[in-house]
Order: sequence, then C-alpha cells, then structure tokens
Amino acid sequence: MGKTWGVRDPVRVVVVGTGQMGSEVVRIVTRKPGLELVGVVSRRAERAGADVATLVGADAPAGLAVSADLARTLGDTRPDVVVHTTCSTLTDAEPEVVAAVTAGADVVSIAEELAWPTAGSPAWAERIDGLARRHGVTVLGTGVNPGFVLDLLVVALTGVCAEVEAIVATRVNDLSPYGPTVLRTQGVGLSPQEFAAGLAAGTVVGHVGFPESIGMIAAALGWTIDRVEQRREPIVATVRRATPFVTVQPGMVAGCLHTAVGYRGQEPAITLVHPQQVQPGAEGIATGDTIEIRGTPPVRLAGRPEVPGGLATAALAVNMIPPVLAAPPGLVSMIDLPVPAAIGGDARHRLPER
Amino acid sequence: MGKTWGVRDPVRVVVVGTGQMGSEVVRIVTRKPGLELVGVVSRRAERAGADVATLVGADAPAGLAVSADLARTLGDTRPDVVVHTTCSTLTDAEPEVVAAVTAGADVVSIAEELAWPTAGSPAWAERIDGLARRHGVTVLGTGVNPGFVLDLLVVALTGVCAEVEAIVATRVNDLSPYGPTVLRTQGVGLSPQEFAAGLAAGTVVGHVGFPESIGMIAAALGWTIDRVEQRREPIVATVRRATPFVTVQPGMVAGCLHTAVGYRGQEPAITLVHPQQVQPGAEGIATGDTIEIRGTPPVRLAGRPEVPGGLATAALAVNMIPPVLAAPPGLVSMIDLPVPAAIGGDARHRLPER
Repeated sequence: MGKTWGVRDPVRVVVVGTGQMGSEVVRIVTRKPGLELVGVVSRRAERAGADVATLVGADAPAGLAVSADLARTLGDTRPDVVVHTTCSTLTDAEPEVVAAVTAGADVVSIAEELAWPTAGSPAWAERIDGLARRHGVTVLGTGVNPGFVLDLLVVALTGVCAEVEAIVATRVNDLSPYGPTVLRTQGVGLSPQEFAAGLAAGTVVGHVGFPESIGMIAAALGWTIDRVEQRREPIVATVRRATPFVTVQPGMVAGCLHTAVGYRGQEPAITLVHPQQVQPGAEGIATGDTIEIRGTPPVRLAGRPEVPGGLATAALAVNMIPPVLAAPPGLVSMIDLPVPAAIGGDARHRLPER
Repeated sequence: MGKTWGVRDPVRVVVVGTGQMGSEVVRIVTRKPGLELVGVVSRRAERAGADVATLVGADAPAGLAVSADLARTLGDTRPDVVVHTTCSTLTDAEPEVVAAVTAGADVVSIAEELAWPTAGSPAWAERIDGLARRHGVTVLGTGVNPGFVLDLLVVALTGVCAEVEAIVATRVNDLSPYGPTVLRTQGVGLSPQEFAAGLAAGTVVGHVGFPESIGMIAAALGWTIDRVEQRREPIVATVRRATPFVTVQPGMVAGCLHTAVGYRGQEPAITLVHPQQVQPGAEGIATGDTIEIRGTPPVRLAGRPEVPGGLATAALAVNMIPPVLAAPPGLVSMIDLPVPAAIGGDARHRLPER
C-alpha cells in the first residue's frame, strides 16, 4: 500500500482532467524522463476512448485512451501519483482525491482550495490527512496562485528578515488568453450593475485562493490572523478592450479587482491585491508580480510581466511530483516541502531508494 | 543523544563567533520567544569573560559571559543548536562543527563553503554527514549568498517552469558598510596592478560561494555541470569614492567584478554575476538582485536595492533553526529543507512534539 516505487522504475502518473490544465500537465509529464503517463481520466463521458495524443498533442504515448472511469483506471494502472486538475473547491475535489488516496496513490492537486485546506474546512483537512496517513500517501495542493506567487514566494522572502511588520503583494495579470468560463467568474463583459448583481448571486467570484494564501503565510510565520476582509470591485474599461472571446466597450467591466487583507488585531498584516482583467495593456496597465516585505531588513522583489498563470500551474504540479513522492504520508502544503525546482534531468534524481 | 528538546522547552542556542555576524545573530536570537541564548563563544581569547549584553547590545541575558572554550561551553550548556559564524571555509569550520555535532547539537553555519560542501570537498561532506547521522543531529550551511539570493531563490523560481534552458542571476551590492577585512578580499583601494598581483597571490579572492551556488542549483534541477569558469576583474573607479574605511581615487580599484559560469557541454547553463564595490552610487550604478530564468515560461524577478548581506545572513541563520531542528539527521542544504520563513511568533510553533 502506498509508495511502492523504486528509483529504477519510472514514476507512474495518472492525470485527472483533460481541460486546458490537464492537457498541459499531460504534455509536460510525457516530456520528462523518469515519469511515465499511465492514464488520463476525464469527467466528460463524451471524451472516453479519445486518443490522448490527439487530444493534447503528439507527445503522449500512442494508443493511450482517455478514460471516464477514475476507479477503474486507478485499479488498472496502479499509479504512484495522481495529478488532479478538474476543479477548484474541496467539496468538488473530494471524491477524486479520496479515490486516488484509497488506491494508494500520492496526489498533487491544482484545486485552489487544496493549497491550504484548513482555510476552507478544517474538518476536510483532518479527514483527508487521516485517510492519507492510513494509506501511506501524501496529498498536496499547489499552483501558481494560490501555491506560489502570493504565498510560497512571499514566505521565502521573509526568510531573510529578522522582523516582519507587514506584507503587501500584488499580482496584475491579463485574462485575454482565457475562455468564457474564466471570464464569467471575473464579470468580464458585464455592466457595473450586472457585476454587482453577479457578486450578490455568487456568479462573479473573483480570485479563488486568498484565504488559502493568507493562511499559509500566517502559518509559516507563526502569526495569528484575527480576520480576513475581502473586497471585489469592477474594473471598468475606459477604452474598448477585445479578445477572441469577449469585447468590452467603454463603461463595461473588463475584470475584477480583488483584494484581501489579513488583520492581526487592528493592523493589516497581510495585504494581497489581484486585479484580473482582459487587455490591461489597452489602458497602459503593465502586468506583473510585486512582493513587498515591510520588515528588518525590508525586501522588495518584482517581475514584469507576471509569471504566466496557466503554464506555471501545470509546470509546478509536475515539478512537485518528486518532493511529494519523497514526503512522509499525510496532507501537506507547499511550506512543508522542499522548495520547488524544475525537473531538468531524470525526475527521479533526488528520490531516495525504497 | 541528539535532538532531545520538547516543544514546551525553549530551544537552547549557542552562538559561536562574536564578530559582526555573531553579534547580530545574538541580538536576533534574544528577541525570539522560544529561543534561549545559553552561550556565546569567541575565538578571540581576549574576549573571554566579556559581558555578552555589553558586547552586542542590551538584549542579551544579563550576566552571560563570552567563553573562549567551545568544548567547555557545549558541555556546560548542552545546546540544541549551535549557530556558527566564525569563518568561510570547510577546513576552518571543521573543528567547531565537529565539536558541536559530537556534543549532540544541530548546527546552522554561515560559512560560505558549507552552503554546498560537496563543491569544495566531497570527502568533507561525506565525513560530516556520517558524523551527524551517528550523533542524530543536522548540519546546515546558509546565508544570503551563497544560500539564498543566487541559489535557493533561483531554484524556487524554476519551480514554475516546464523547461529551463539557462539561468542568469546578478547581485550588485555596496561594500561601503564593510570594514578593512572584507575590503581587502575584494581589492578595494588597490591599483589595477596590485589587484592583479593580489589575485595571483590569493589575497584578492572576490566572492566566496559561486561553486556552491552552482552546485546547489544544478543538484536541484538534476543538471550535470561539466565545468565552472570564474573570472575576477577589477572595478576601476572613474570618480573618487570614499567610505569611513577607505578612499578610492579615480583609476584605483573600487571593487571586484566576479563572474562564474557553469557549463553543460559547451552551453553556459548557469551564469552568476556579482560585482562587489564601495559607493556604486557615486557612478550612478544601482544596487539590486536580478534573477532571470530562460525557459518555458521565462521568469524574471528583480529587487532594488539588493537584499542586504549582513543582516539577511544573520536573520536567515536564526530563521533556519526551527526547520533544522525538525529535519532528519545528516548534512543537509537549503534545497533539502522547507522554504525559510521569518520567525514571527514563538520559534517552536511548527516543531513536532518529540
């Protein structure tokens, strides 16, 4: 049960999800020596039987077919690790995570709420941690954000500080490559009135992951956060912004400015700012990531453009496979594991013998 | 033998070294709940008996005296961890590291060569690793550079890459706060001819840590580096540059431009650039850290001014105490441990019960 591979065997990988993220994970996995793609599972019944290589590009093994039956694929392929890419929430992810864990596979999930599950549900975290330990496997949530830019990287930069007073981190990105599903959740194309109604109805959600990022940072530093306040405001276009999927006229909503503040007492200790919009460049807005640690010494690091969300998330999920395989059993987070690293050689090069 | 503390006991810390770094470590340790400074050891016999609080500032426990006898201090105080700040090289560090390990203490050292000891001496690394395992303790080398800016942070940023072709990282700093010892090793104040003679004689050394940083990055990514080439060039002042410790006239050397390139075959895979000089601002040169990952996706992050060397190294050494205490025995490096984090609460908050 659990981690049974040896360094001479390739690591057997099943990818769950065949959307943009799942397909990218498949492409990366198939290019890495030491990783073997043994199964691809889709939630969409109509994709069952589709040729994986055709679906995602020519890199995948010839003849490997998409399955719509996760349990059967797990039983047939006995993977060492499942990369899980189908959803964002703990509730939605639970059946697939449980199936993988009970089949004895480690799990790397890009579900945003899995980056720090206690933020969403301490009971879920306790349940999955117990299950993972009983089955001798490790479960990790990761991704570019939450999971890296606005939390792990922030934590790492505090590592050179004797004292930290406050943290402010901003990620300005461009939603132009994204399709209708993502654009809808950010209110792109709505009127400001429709945006407000969407917020009230829960159809406009902004970024998923702020409580998770704040929870991870606070846990790493040993801070107690007394409350988290979130604000979601419409970014109203002043010029026409167009993508292949949407055209935003002046006066309409180009995206969502989502801000979260974690307070220690009355002090804003962790402020995370994440405006997401289409075509920010049309109004002269540069995309980028900025992390500012107000402390002793102060630390400030910035990059333009931003670390691209989609590809970075897929890469990070694959790059975390070796440290997850090497980790002790249980539900873990990015701050529990060694720093992520690109797989530049054989994926097994730092795995201990078993 | 080895790690015997429990989370209810404060972590007992001995600091070895009472120079600028050791004193800063003492100041930080004494401000952290959960850490208890139980001893301070100096190599300088004339400091024996000096009051620690007087030597480093009022934070240290009243009545604690500097010792010049490491073995006796270790025996008397039974520390959980020794923070080692006296030197740069494996050879110089070995007796103190061995004394701490055989006394059953974990070690966090800021000796540059300890950041990746196999670069300097695989035999040393094997010897200390074996000794640490036998005594059930953990030995880590860390510091701002090597140990963080030009290696750990580089590795972390590759974590979002599906492929990495090459890495270029630059650290431009200001030596103005440093005293004669540091300035001499960089050739500050010499004529270009004296600089060349100093290089040949080994009195001008530039940065200590490039083979270590390149070794760490390569190991994390699974790259084989075929050779490392280093260049040390004088930075010749074109205007007068003055600090409290040195005045550099135009035509004289203001510092050392030290560059290292790690090659994979004929390709420069890892290029690290570290010009160290006094008063770069006098010639309009901005200090800062820049990391560029040429890959898929490309990643570029930069900060101005640079993460300050001295304070950051001392803070990092203290911040690594909890992860070192929690780590399995042996000689470890920054890429083996969870990402560093500032200690913002009780230093024991993430330590497992024992």
